[in-house]
Amino acid sequence: MPRAWCLKSRPKGMPTAANFELKVLALPPLVEGMVRVRNHWLSVDPYMRGRMNDVKSYVPAFQLGEPMDGGAIGEVVESNAEGFAPGDLVQHMAGWRDEVVLAARAVHKVPGLGVEPQLFLGVLGIPGATAWFGLLDVAQAKPGDSVFVSAAAGAVGSAVVQIAKVKGMRVIGSVGGPNKCDYVRSLGADAMVDYKAGPILKGLSAAATDGIDVYFDNVGGDHLDAALAIARAHARFAICGMIAGYNKPEPTSMRFILRVIAARIRIQGFLITDYLPRMSEFYREMVPLVTSGAVKSRETVVDGLERMPDAFLGLFEGANVGKMLVRL
Amino acid sequence: MPRAWCLKSRPKGMPTAANFELKVLALPPLVEGMVRVRNHWLSVDPYMRGRMNDVKSYVPAFQLGEPMDGGAIGEVVESNAEGFAPGDLVQHMAGWRDEVVLAARAVHKVPGLGVEPQLFLGVLGIPGATAWFGLLDVAQAKPGDSVFVSAAAGAVGSAVVQIAKVKGMRVIGSVGGPNKCDYVRSLGADAMVDYKAGPILKGLSAAATDGIDVYFDNVGGDHLDAALAIARAHARFAICGMIAGYNKPEPTSMRFILRVIAARIRIQGFLITDYLPRMSEFYREMVPLVTSGAVKSRETVVDGLERMPDAFLGLFEGANVGKMLVRL
Repeated sequence: MPRAWCLKSRPKGMPTAANFELKVLALPPLVEGMVRVRNHWLSVDPYMRGRMNDVKSYVPAFQLGEPMDGGAIGEVVESNAEGFAPGDLVQHMAGWRDEVVLAARAVHKVPGLGVEPQLFLGVLGIPGATAWFGLLDVAQAKPGDSVFVSAAAGAVGSAVVQIAKVKGMRVIGSVGGPNKCDYVRSLGADAMVDYKAGPILKGLSAAATDGIDVYFDNVGGDHLDAALAIARAHARFAICGMIAGYNKPEPTSMRFILRVIAARIRIQGFLITDYLPRMSEFYREMVPLVTSGAVKSRETVVDGLERMPDAFLGLFEGANVGKMLVRL
Repeated sequence: MPRAWCLKSRPKGMPTAANFELKVLALPPLVEGMVRVRNHWLSVDPYMRGRMNDVKSYVPAFQLGEPMDGGAIGEVVESNAEGFAPGDLVQHMAGWRDEVVLAARAVHKVPGLGVEPQLFLGVLGIPGATAWFGLLDVAQAKPGDSVFVSAAAGAVGSAVVQIAKVKGMRVIGSVGGPNKCDYVRSLGADAMVDYKAGPILKGLSAAATDGIDVYFDNVGGDHLDAALAIARAHARFAICGMIAGYNKPEPTSMRFILRVIAARIRIQGFLITDYLPRMSEFYREMVPLVTSGAVKSRETVVDGLERMPDAFLGLFEGANVGKMLVRL
């Protein structure tokens, strides 16, 4: 029987397994224009935390008792829609479940590029595009710039590191722990900061002695403050995520916000949804980088629908290197 | 004998009168190319606080025991420089004193526009230009935008209010106290928030029920946080000053910084020095507005060089309405 993870209760602060409930879900009839999809890969992303709050935001809140959504790659197992046949690999937003009936317009065929399909949830998907447009368009990073990226071992951060190196930038990454440091160094980062080894400002000051021109923020909090402290004149900050704050009701304490004036810093928040009309531009540039091996993908794979909440909670404990995925 | 205010000791936190010392200052000989100027008006500005700290910044720190600098309007009383004659009104940066000998290249004649000369320290000077470029260039404010400006009764803020109204924007101002509320309303502000009457977020939410498109920040701290809380999508913040933080060693506590992402807010710090090459553009547009009375100027005048430190300290207590000046 098809099953889906539903939001049982809204988390206050850090979510726990008790906030989620795996329910059997009767599928609707396969009327004309619909396809039945069996999921192979479920995307696990920090932004999903925001949808668990009952607040108006850029994506609708998850509804209590209802299945949650998220990116997924699956296979058509039954089709009543023109242009789709069993065996087709498709991408869609009905994640957090194993099987689903969807309108054909809500699914997209995975391009046959000879790469593993789950890359379209990672380096060739939303995380990769987020890195691309955030770095090059939002932050206007240029060859020769010093770029600091936090959560540099994550799905977005590891793509930022590699795109920046391809484009001729100097890269300083921050991660938690020596293993992740080694991993991001292997991607080409010039210097690393382990935020678990000491205050981020101290580590960042040592790693970026000449300051930074660009900060790609996935963390917020003390990372953002440290970036403000050492930013060079006319630095650009692309604010992609602030995972440090997603589960904390306390305010962010900023010691260096005053530096935005003297250094004329630009802090720009962005959403990848605004860039979806430009995805073809991203594919055109990124696909060759990935197929040639210039940009590598790494995944942390958790097996089994039952473990989807564990995988999600792991994001906030730094459990993933690269893209966090659940494989069914 | 010429006298100048010198920095006796560096303030920690809020400055006090004990940080300043009025010294008799022997003037250098009036060699060729020099003019002797008797000051009539001394500019009193919040940014001067930053120069009292011994840190590298966009303007050099004041040196201990040495005269401080600042904008001033004076009259040439003796000239050994071509093109300058006694009686010429000139503008220069040797404020905080009554008389000075300067190289002719360091002084600029006040244009004969039939306006009071001290306006060139205010609405037709750096504060006015800061308002102009900050609002129209940094924040890219457009007709129809809702603009929130803090310290709206100050030299910069009151110019922002009036320029915004001339350009067809809706304006919400924040000030401390009912008198300043009345004053800024008289300049055309559509709604006012008195930050002394209650939490700024509460007042701002009530005054700007549809949110804001632009925030012109002169205050920082809780004002910046409140602006983040209610900003509309794609809002632009021009960060001009953060007077709330100039004397506080404590970090700024931000509850709503996470909103930069969902609302794609742009926070841009700026310095008017970057716009000095565009001053002619400012004069061309602003002079007619001032001479026609469309943009009004107001001053808080403190008489006597002896009271310069009092005037400066008053900035941090909200003592001024409009431009704070010392008249000699």
